[in-house]
Amino acid sequence: MPVLTILTDDALSPPPNLDRLRELVEVRLSSAADLPALVRGADAVFGWDFFSGALREAWPAADRLRWLHVAAAGVDAMLFPELVDSEVVVTNATGQFDRPIAEFVAAQVLAEAKQLYPMHDLQQRKQWRHRETELIAGRRVLVVGTGGIGRAIARLLRALDMSVTGVGRVARETDPDFGTVLSSDRLAEHVCGVDHLVVIAPLTDSTRGMIDAQVLAALPDGAQVINVGRGALIDEQALIALLSTGRITAALDVVQTEPLPVDSPLWELPNVHLSPHMSGDVNGWRDRLAEQFEANLRRWLAGDELHGVVDKRAGYVRHG
Amino acid sequence: MPVLTILTDDALSPPPNLDRLRELVEVRLSSAADLPALVRGADAVFGWDFFSGALREAWPAADRLRWLHVAAAGVDAMLFPELVDSEVVVTNATGQFDRPIAEFVAAQVLAEAKQLYPMHDLQQRKQWRHRETELIAGRRVLVVGTGGIGRAIARLLRALDMSVTGVGRVARETDPDFGTVLSSDRLAEHVCGVDHLVVIAPLTDSTRGMIDAQVLAALPDGAQVINVGRGALIDEQALIALLSTGRITAALDVVQTEPLPVDSPLWELPNVHLSPHMSGDVNGWRDRLAEQFEANLRRWLAGDELHGVVDKRAGYVRHG
Repeated sequence: MPVLTILTDDALSPPPNLDRLRELVEVRLSSAADLPALVRGADAVFGWDFFSGALREAWPAADRLRWLHVAAAGVDAMLFPELVDSEVVVTNATGQFDRPIAEFVAAQVLAEAKQLYPMHDLQQRKQWRHRETELIAGRRVLVVGTGGIGRAIARLLRALDMSVTGVGRVARETDPDFGTVLSSDRLAEHVCGVDHLVVIAPLTDSTRGMIDAQVLAALPDGAQVINVGRGALIDEQALIALLSTGRITAALDVVQTEPLPVDSPLWELPNVHLSPHMSGDVNGWRDRLAEQFEANLRRWLAGDELHGVVDKRAGYVRHG
Repeated sequence: MPVLTILTDDALSPPPNLDRLRELVEVRLSSAADLPALVRGADAVFGWDFFSGALREAWPAADRLRWLHVAAAGVDAMLFPELVDSEVVVTNATGQFDRPIAEFVAAQVLAEAKQLYPMHDLQQRKQWRHRETELIAGRRVLVVGTGGIGRAIARLLRALDMSVTGVGRVARETDPDFGTVLSSDRLAEHVCGVDHLVVIAPLTDSTRGMIDAQVLAALPDGAQVINVGRGALIDEQALIALLSTGRITAALDVVQTEPLPVDSPLWELPNVHLSPHMSGDVNGWRDRLAEQFEANLRRWLAGDELHGVVDKRAGYVRHG
């Protein structure tokens, strides 16, 4: 019977389908600390604790590993050079976060346009003060990242009659979800005139810091930056500097260091709306991540093609 | 030259197209107090201050009045029995608020599902605390009111993949915007199982208090009431009593008495999100209301059919 090591954490409940997994394979539950011992002889690792860097430490002991499944969309925390160079197949939670994150982005776009946060603050002061808001129909959105989540965001915002354009590695004119995809090479030019900049690129060596000071400076007054990708995609110091001027607003579900350190200025900036890396985590998400892994496990045992295979050199699942 | 009296208020700027109106008709700008003097001899009144009850007081002096245009969707504040019984044609700002209010409703649906308000409060306490949210796709919405705004709400929430049903005077199965419209007679039965109850009916003798204690009691746990119609459509005391239990939530853009009195419990209930009757008031709304009136004025002068003619006995513009 193949051996599966589930990398988990004391703070996490084990996968709810653990009993079913045990019927399929020999299961070892492992903390990060125990992984060097428990990955030895394992054929597969399930990264249930999907932000853990423990496999890198345990890598010398991974003597039989053939497959790693990461229960997350972004696999940046799990990838390291030896794994990339190895024969180990890496899969991710492809698709699971597409719609939830798209809805979260729509929520933040609408909250900003309709001034829900300032009205909430006025209510706390018992102030009835009429305000004018913005129509989102026709507003321009640039979505940086053309993977499954970026595509779901584009579809949903287009359903809300917004004008959406994508940014990806390769420019194209007739994308089914975006219409036009612009090249990420000239981002500072592309952000001129956008009302909402949505960041959902995978974090790789090529994308780290891609929303740099120059790109941020090119944003028009009143633009909203929504980051639902990874904090390190944006130059956080440059972002904080710009936000401190009040010239733009931001909804940040991810930040460079998570949890956000208490001394970060982001906590207190009135034009920043923080959420604790949960834009995709809808009721039942953990159950569905476990079920998705189980379905992949059954494919793997049957010798069928796995879903969500990551291009390890690129750092993400290739779409389309 | 016909005489137009514009009912306005010191707090309001006059219509921005006043000079153009003056090329078309003899214009009198009138406060509420001056209306009895300034409505005499007037052929038309433009209710630029659309919540004013001044015409009722001035009615005996309205000796030539043939047309009243109200720069609002709901004409409840402007209608009174003598006006209803008269030959005076009443028109309203039909269409102007459809899309803005639909977007506002979508914003409040998403804010609730994505817990934006609690996260905002956590941010103010610098707490990074992961939360699970709700998917809105498939959630059930009941829209009470099948006029232009209700229809725009239905279309937008359906574009967000929500399951929308309408409630109107007349039940029907094949409505273009709602699919199914249920009869308002049995509202307490219809609200069973809804996730979001959107109230956008016109305020008339038939609809006043239609969301009564029985209807509210029938709402499922966790339901959200969104009122973008008129406060008096809901039994506010019953609503406050239910909200105080924490069993449901509410987003109220309108309340029984506006501005909301400072001693209202609605200010402080954590599951209530108030906005000061501005759900439809997007940037430029006053300009567009003035332009809409001017277009109707040109029709009126040319003897063409007016847009947005109110069925005065019903209390609203009939659609479809």
